[in-house]
Amino acid sequence: MSDGAGLALGKDLIGLETLDGDQIRGILDTAEPFKEISERKVKKVPVLRGKTIVNLFFEPSTRTRISFEFAEKRLSADTVNISSTGSSVVKGETLVDTARNLEAMRIDMVVIRHGSAGAAQFLADRIPSNVINAGDGPHEHPTQALLDLLTIRDSLGSIEGRRICIVGDILHSRVARSNIWGLLKCGAEVAVCGPKTLIPSGIEELGVRYFTSLDEAIEWAEVLNVLRLQLERMSGGYVPSLREYNRVFGVKQKRLDRANHDVVVLHPGPMNRGVEIDSDVADGPNSVILDQVTNGVAVRMAVLYLLAGGQPEMAEAAKRGGE
Amino acid sequence: MSDGAGLALGKDLIGLETLDGDQIRGILDTAEPFKEISERKVKKVPVLRGKTIVNLFFEPSTRTRISFEFAEKRLSADTVNISSTGSSVVKGETLVDTARNLEAMRIDMVVIRHGSAGAAQFLADRIPSNVINAGDGPHEHPTQALLDLLTIRDSLGSIEGRRICIVGDILHSRVARSNIWGLLKCGAEVAVCGPKTLIPSGIEELGVRYFTSLDEAIEWAEVLNVLRLQLERMSGGYVPSLREYNRVFGVKQKRLDRANHDVVVLHPGPMNRGVEIDSDVADGPNSVILDQVTNGVAVRMAVLYLLAGGQPEMAEAAKRGGE
Amino acid sequence: MSDGAGLALGKDLIGLETLDGDQIRGILDTAEPFKEISERKVKKVPVLRGKTIVNLFFEPSTRTRISFEFAEKRLSADTVNISSTGSSVVKGETLVDTARNLEAMRIDMVVIRHGSAGAAQFLADRIPSNVINAGDGPHEHPTQALLDLLTIRDSLGSIEGRRICIVGDILHSRVARSNIWGLLKCGAEVAVCGPKTLIPSGIEELGVRYFTSLDEAIEWAEVLNVLRLQLERMSGGYVPSLREYNRVFGVKQKRLDRANHDVVVLHPGPMNRGVEIDSDVADGPNSVILDQVTNGVAVRMAVLYLLAGGQPEMAEAAKRGGE
Repeated sequence: MSDGAGLALGKDLIGLETLDGDQIRGILDTAEPFKEISERKVKKVPVLRGKTIVNLFFEPSTRTRISFEFAEKRLSADTVNISSTGSSVVKGETLVDTARNLEAMRIDMVVIRHGSAGAAQFLADRIPSNVINAGDGPHEHPTQALLDLLTIRDSLGSIEGRRICIVGDILHSRVARSNIWGLLKCGAEVAVCGPKTLIPSGIEELGVRYFTSLDEAIEWAEVLNVLRLQLERMSGGYVPSLREYNRVFGVKQKRLDRANHDVVVLHPGPMNRGVEIDSDVADGPNSVILDQVTNGVAVRMAVLYLLAGGQPEMAEAAKRGGE
Repeated sequence: MSDGAGLALGKDLIGLETLDGDQIRGILDTAEPFKEISERKVKKVPVLRGKTIVNLFFEPSTRTRISFEFAEKRLSADTVNISSTGSSVVKGETLVDTARNLEAMRIDMVVIRHGSAGAAQFLADRIPSNVINAGDGPHEHPTQALLDLLTIRDSLGSIEGRRICIVGDILHSRVARSNIWGLLKCGAEVAVCGPKTLIPSGIEELGVRYFTSLDEAIEWAEVLNVLRLQLERMSGGYVPSLREYNRVFGVKQKRLDRANHDVVVLHPGPMNRGVEIDSDVADGPNSVILDQVTNGVAVRMAVLYLLAGGQPEMAEAAKRGGE
Repeated sequence: MSDGAGLALGKDLIGLETLDGDQIRGILDTAEPFKEISERKVKKVPVLRGKTIVNLFFEPSTRTRISFEFAEKRLSADTVNISSTGSSVVKGETLVDTARNLEAMRIDMVVIRHGSAGAAQFLADRIPSNVINAGDGPHEHPTQALLDLLTIRDSLGSIEGRRICIVGDILHSRVARSNIWGLLKCGAEVAVCGPKTLIPSGIEELGVRYFTSLDEAIEWAEVLNVLRLQLERMSGGYVPSLREYNRVFGVKQKRLDRANHDVVVLHPGPMNRGVEIDSDVADGPNSVILDQVTNGVAVRMAVLYLLAGGQPEMAEAAKRGGE
């Protein structure tokens, strides 16, 4: 296995569209031994000691940024945060100049979140450092999908052949796109459900079913992945009102109870309780939403480890290497 | 002594109202050996190595945040800062969801500052991590009061039986509340002094004296703890003007000189020089304001150490454990 | 050599005006061995372990802040960032109170950027910690000039006797001022070129030539250091339009090609491409702009090392001391 490549992932993690099922399963398998590190009293292994990582966030984020930050620190990397407030970004520097400057400072990795699709790839093409896409506009958010996949696998024992329905604003969602690619490549059956205005045309050509009725979707699905409704969609005229959205597409316990089988519920957060998901579901027995958050740290540790050249089969040993 | 409890403080430090004198004195005693670490060339001991701590600040703060941050780093913890700008807070996530997410990332401790009374307790009730209140609305700011107590004890040799007067806006001040609880529990005599509009009604029922005249307060007191005047109180109509406030309640050297005894002066900062305190006092021989700041780091190290399960009697050994 | 002094630099680095040529050359020589650390897999040496450093930025900055932050972390220091947003600054605390508070927390070093000339010296006069000026209004930005000097020396083999022309807004530029002092003290010939409104009167008295024509400047110079045009200068009436500025003072490849010798091009960044510099130059063979960024980390490591009391002749050994 070549240096810096790990699972032959290549230099960067931009999206799941360009990975194959073996690569995705390899990341999930590598995440397994890293889960345990966060359960220890001393949550730290020296895997990335002396590596410098920049978290470059052009959009606000807590969850994703701190999940990466904990993953980096638990691997002993040195991290620097750059957010668009208080940065050269306000002086109008181009992304390519930012990239070259970071490179010139000899950083090892960049985690980038950006409002434009393609920004992560653009950066990756211009610097030798590893680039990890933490969300680029409506394009992809691969570590979110990976943690969703890991959580589904933990819950059901497998992904292949399972029926997962993504509910909500599919059209604008990088989480939906990355999930669809990841799930299909791992052999799952995938459906979407949401207002027609928020479903990309031609989605069936990817092999994805479309349910207009949430109840039918629940009847079919073993897993619902419920997306956050971006509240600005309302002013955009995509949905008539939050109340109406909740009435038609809100995931509620009584709907789940009507199904003749268990349905596991995921949500990438942050939740709009009472809009796309009701609290009885979010906090109820079907929810694995907090497992997703826990898995997020482990998946990100695995991705950082693999891109830094770690071998999947050595992850078990790496986690034992306390400082 | 039970695991994670230390001085039987319990899991969290929310306020001084619920502690007793022995617990408060125990924290102060534990802070003593930690003072010396900050005087070293290598200001670092491995007491909290591999622990992950979140500093969750919903209100702006420099002093308190960096005091905690230095305390955490000098104990070798991994820290992540979250401020309300640039965080999920802008997306309207509830505090309970933020809490559960942090917990799911397996953090060990949260230091929280929030604009609402009760926010720290609310958080503490919902997560197994240790929660330290760094100020919750007008309710409590326990580490500030603890550093004030430590500074008074350093200056006078004892707290019991000493006469301390808190000057200024008692009504809206979490610093005042925490000080009153801490001082009373340590056996001090406590008074307050300030405009009637800024004194809580019924304060005498707590056993606290009320002086309307600052000169009489100074005549009585061994210590003045001078509170910052929140400038928005003026627009609220609580004080007629800054100049008038300074004339009547401003602590000035010539006032201190008229007393027939020494008066130690504290201020939690940041100071409005020329409003609640004049520069001749702030920078004069009676001031222990900078000692408070130095003690702040030691007290916070002690609190972190104790909540993490450290034993008070082992603090001396812990500080010797250089990496 | 006295403790804490290193090259007899004294306690602080405020500007190059007060240093002599030997001191400046000593810093550049000390930076040499530190360059290699950033090229390693493990970019970390324990030189400043257990030291606490505050990066106190009252003006927004990415490049300079993260360059310092990487320098600090690669030397194993503990760092805390304070920016004017979200800090006590919003509560109107004076700089002297901020300084005394930091000191009371027993920090070892402060890196300060501030909008007012003299702020760094003001701070340095009031605290025993080492103070490094990261830009104080239009006054000085010494580490920028040091990295420029190192880059010129790398490119030409020497500084003495070389002809360097600084192009642009000399009047308001701390980078220009620090460069002029540093270059003159190292024996270079120095010129400036720019609109008359942006050239300080009497600059020739320092021994600096003034070119009104960029083509004549290029004919004369071996090095052009092209300054960023602060876009607010336009609204101030200093320049008629960006297009006109670019036409007259923009550095373009075809202008460089007309010179009968090589011209090395520097720019402190962030660049306004198409204003003071065209992309064909910025990304072309004459540009050493990214070398400047790389050298910036090494120069800052050297300054931190020397102010902390490191000996120039021991820098080679220090870099070998991997943890």
